[in-house]
Amino acid sequence: MSDTSLLETFPNPKPERDYVIEHTFPEFTSVCPKTGQPDFGTVVITYVADASCLELKALKLYLNGYRNEGVFYEKVTNIILDDLITACQPRRMKVQTRWAPRGGISSVLTAEHTGGKKE
Amino acid sequence: MSDTSLLETFPNPKPERDYVIEHTFPEFTSVCPKTGQPDFGTVVITYVADASCLELKALKLYLNGYRNEGVFYEKVTNIILDDLITACQPRRMKVQTRWAPRGGISSVLTAEHTGGKKE
Amino acid sequence: MSDTSLLETFPNPKPERDYVIEHTFPEFTSVCPKTGQPDFGTVVITYVADASCLELKALKLYLNGYRNEGVFYEKVTNIILDDLITACQPRRMKVQTRWAPRGGISSVLTAEHTGGKKE
Amino acid sequence: MSDTSLLETFPNPKPERDYVIEHTFPEFTSVCPKTGQPDFGTVVITYVADASCLELKALKLYLNGYRNEGVFYEKVTNIILDDLITACQPRRMKVQTRWAPRGGISSVLTAEHTGGKKE
Amino acid sequence: MSDTSLLETFPNPKPERDYVIEHTFPEFTSVCPKTGQPDFGTVVITYVADASCLELKALKLYLNGYRNEGVFYEKVTNIILDDLITACQPRRMKVQTRWAPRGGISSVLTAEHTGGKKE
Amino acid sequence: MSDTSLLETFPNPKPERDYVIEHTFPEFTSVCPKTGQPDFGTVVITYVADASCLELKALKLYLNGYRNEGVFYEKVTNIILDDLITACQPRRMKVQTRWAPRGGISSVLTAEHTGGKKE
Amino acid sequence: MSDTSLLETFPNPKPERDYVIEHTFPEFTSVCPKTGQPDFGTVVITYVADASCLELKALKLYLNGYRNEGVFYEKVTNIILDDLITACQPRRMKVQTRWAPRGGISSVLTAEHTGGKKE
Amino acid sequence: MSDTSLLETFPNPKPERDYVIEHTFPEFTSVCPKTGQPDFGTVVITYVADASCLELKALKLYLNGYRNEGVFYEKVTNIILDDLITACQPRRMKVQTRWAPRGGISSVLTAEHTGGKKE
Amino acid sequence: MSDTSLLETFPNPKPERDYVIEHTFPEFTSVCPKTGQPDFGTVVITYVADASCLELKALKLYLNGYRNEGVFYEKVTNIILDDLITACQPRRMKVQTRWAPRGGISSVLTAEHTGGKKE
Amino acid sequence: MSDTSLLETFPNPKPERDYVIEHTFPEFTSVCPKTGQPDFGTVVITYVADASCLELKALKLYLNGYRNEGVFYEKVTNIILDDLITACQPRRMKVQTRWAPRGGISSVLTAEHTGGKKE
Repeated sequence: MSDTSLLETFPNPKPERDYVIEHTFPEFTSVCPKTGQPDFGTVVITYVADASCLELKALKLYLNGYRNEGVFYEKVTNIILDDLITACQPRRMKVQTRWAPRGGISSVLTAEHTGGKKE
Repeated sequence: MSDTSLLETFPNPKPERDYVIEHTFPEFTSVCPKTGQPDFGTVVITYVADASCLELKALKLYLNGYRNEGVFYEKVTNIILDDLITACQPRRMKVQTRWAPRGGISSVLTAEHTGGKKE
Repeated sequence: MSDTSLLETFPNPKPERDYVIEHTFPEFTSVCPKTGQPDFGTVVITYVADASCLELKALKLYLNGYRNEGVFYEKVTNIILDDLITACQPRRMKVQTRWAPRGGISSVLTAEHTGGKKE
Repeated sequence: MSDTSLLETFPNPKPERDYVIEHTFPEFTSVCPKTGQPDFGTVVITYVADASCLELKALKLYLNGYRNEGVFYEKVTNIILDDLITACQPRRMKVQTRWAPRGGISSVLTAEHTGGKKE
Repeated sequence: MSDTSLLETFPNPKPERDYVIEHTFPEFTSVCPKTGQPDFGTVVITYVADASCLELKALKLYLNGYRNEGVFYEKVTNIILDDLITACQPRRMKVQTRWAPRGGISSVLTAEHTGGKKE
Repeated sequence: MSDTSLLETFPNPKPERDYVIEHTFPEFTSVCPKTGQPDFGTVVITYVADASCLELKALKLYLNGYRNEGVFYEKVTNIILDDLITACQPRRMKVQTRWAPRGGISSVLTAEHTGGKKE
Repeated sequence: MSDTSLLETFPNPKPERDYVIEHTFPEFTSVCPKTGQPDFGTVVITYVADASCLELKALKLYLNGYRNEGVFYEKVTNIILDDLITACQPRRMKVQTRWAPRGGISSVLTAEHTGGKKE
Repeated sequence: MSDTSLLETFPNPKPERDYVIEHTFPEFTSVCPKTGQPDFGTVVITYVADASCLELKALKLYLNGYRNEGVFYEKVTNIILDDLITACQPRRMKVQTRWAPRGGISSVLTAEHTGGKKE
Repeated sequence: MSDTSLLETFPNPKPERDYVIEHTFPEFTSVCPKTGQPDFGTVVITYVADASCLELKALKLYLNGYRNEGVFYEKVTNIILDDLITACQPRRMKVQTRWAPRGGISSVLTAEHTGGKKE
Repeated sequence: MSDTSLLETFPNPKPERDYVIEHTFPEFTSVCPKTGQPDFGTVVITYVADASCLELKALKLYLNGYRNEGVFYEKVTNIILDDLITACQPRRMKVQTRWAPRGGISSVLTAEHTGGKKE
């Protein structure tokens, strides 16, 4: 729902080691498809790179692309995971979205991908 | 003890992946069946959806339905879990209730259901 | 909007000294008159007693009396202050209500009364 | 820069008392006019009403109206204060905006208005 | 060392499910048998009920019964666990006592019982 | 209600300077005269000594003397202040008691004495 | 000791109102002139603008200019204040530097300027 | 490096159960053997007693015995563990030392002993 | 009680401005003159320099000089203030000592000096 | 990218025991190779020594050596781990770098080495 062509990668400087990269973006916002009101959340991306690492500025622009998209929590969490997998083909990756309360309820969604190389 | 017909679901947008959904509702209140005085707590629902996800606004209305019900901690925790299982048939689900102190004692109850598809 | 006859007082054990009494009640709930949905808040009562002190258990029952009342934040804060002034005729009193977020906005209301005897 | 016609008021239920109303909105977002990138902040509005109080849902819609506006911190803080004064003519009002870090710097802006009736 | 006849139980409303009940009592006090000075601590009881659950008000009275008893940390932790096992025959139970500092040292004691039905 | 003869003082080592001494005792307990159940609180004593300072170990024994006394918050706060004034004749002194919640309400009482020598 | 020509300003959008701007920069580093080892601190700038406001990106570059400068806490705090006064001629300004511990001691320095227009 | 004859034990009141005892001592100080300057840390001792428990007041005196000893973190952590094992022959024991920053670096050392009876 | 000749000063780089310097030393230790046991505390020194500033490394050595001195809280707080005044002749100075609990009581002592030049 | 000859070691005082050493350095800074702007982070080094331990002052100088180096998060984390392994040949070692936000995103990188002797 954002433009995946915004994503960029650079070569993993240490592909022979399985090390963990975690990026936390507390400024995610999208729009509730039911009410049209904005939603706010934090996106946490944790992965083990294979050949490619996610470039940070490009990642930010990609995440900003949801600003005016109407999408449910469950869907956007899985789409971000799918898009990032396509972009950098990680050995494994987890995407967690933590949402500000709506109707008194705050939600956390966690989707995980385990790639070819085992942990 | 609340009206389960209040609960609504929507189709899981990514049923092929086991991802975790957690909703935290800090505004739960019911009535102590012994003293008639109100109890206050936080309800945390954590689950892996199968075909259906819990709709948030409906979930809130269902939880609000306990406002004037007299029920023990042990019972209400298990009933909420049972009702939500019936409503959305999750792969697995955990309900935790965390209660404000009564007589200086604060309580946390945790009930878990493991469905057909293993973690 | 609650029953003021629930309130009870006992004689101030040290009326010759201006000392400060503060009671914090984090379990206040009422109903939004617009949406019919419950509101949750903390009520903080700070006062200097004259001849009478507020009895705690009675105070709790009085505050619980708003549980099913539909009332705006601005109104309920002032009514509680008015009712408590009537009940115990304090030298001075402040009522603060701190509300859980609604539509992403959390609110704090503060009403104060300065009686005859100066601080 | 947002639509002031979105703002609504209701009659102050206790105009004979100077009491303080504070609304905190942690979900404010606008756009940096220099870089085009989104800014995120918390808006805190503190006021003593005269004849009118700000209606909360309308206030939220008004604040959401800055979502795609390009505006500096210094300007938007003062405009919000000016718009809210026009809308509800408070006895006094303070607007504080607290911004997420940009280039490692986090900012807090505070503008205050003292109306006719003295504190 | 307290009166175990104070303890009461009620039937487990959901014996067919292994769910976890945790009660935290931050107001425990006993007496140091060496110095005669009071000790203060928090008692945390975590258990899976079998046929019976511990009644909260009775539990509080039982724990209050140590108020004037002289007893070492190591002993009182194990006695509470033994008494509660006798009272409600849980599937498993853990008692943790967390003590305020004495001579600059703060202590935490944890005793666990694993009953017939395995976790 | 405790034994004031337990209190001891020692000569102020710097009477020519008005400096502030604050002692915080988080292990205060007494008994509710209505219910017979124990109350728990923190006592904070802040004073400017004149000729005499309060000896700490003696102060502790005096405060422990309330362990089995039935007394209301309002009364015990004022009695402690009165007893300590009698014992050490301070230039000024404040006693604050902060109580663990009862019936969901937590209370803070603050009594102050301003002696001969002005602040 | 940094290059003041790096500083830039823009016109105050609301010069007719005295409002407060605060920028917090937790990434300040300079060098200890005695040991040659790096120092780390947070710089907090609080001011009321007159005709000009400090541009944030330029401010950051100016503060980064101390990275390889050897300077004592007392001196750098006053130089930053002097430089910023020269740059934007504020109605009033405060500079506070909060330093990471050296030899177990952490320091906070606060320098303030009151300009022509009184607070 | 401290006097192990200071250590005392008392009989384990419940040797038939493997329960965990943890003592936290935030007032440990020794001397850096390189600079002669004092070091400050917290010592956490966690163990399962066999026949004997460590007496607390004696333990404190033993730990105070390092006050004027020059010793590296790595060495003192292991010596304390060795001395306590000798003193009370625990089933298992862990000693953790957490040190205040030196040169900006704070350190945590953790040494563990697993005795005859397995966990 | 420590060696005041350890203290060193350097010229105030901005004597024409009254700015505030605060040093916090969380590693203070002395000995209780009654029990012979060590005391631990944090010393906070806040001052406005006149011609001279306190050199930090020398200040640390001076404060370390109390390590084996037996002295009451009330006395040591005032002596440190007196010694530092003598060393650097500040316009004004405050010394606060915050002590770890003894017998469950934690203490804070605050002594202040106002010199020739008024605040 | 820093000078590995700065690193020093000393003999492990207890090589017969596998104990864990953790050093946390919150004052790491390097330069972004893309923007030329400084980056700030915390480096946490956790290891089990074999024959040699890392000397702390030397470790600090080595980490300070990155101050003016342009290097990506992913690369510097792995280089530090490689350099420290070369220097002290640990049984196992983990290096974690936690970075201050850039463009709203804060990152944590974790690289681990498991040496000859298994955990």
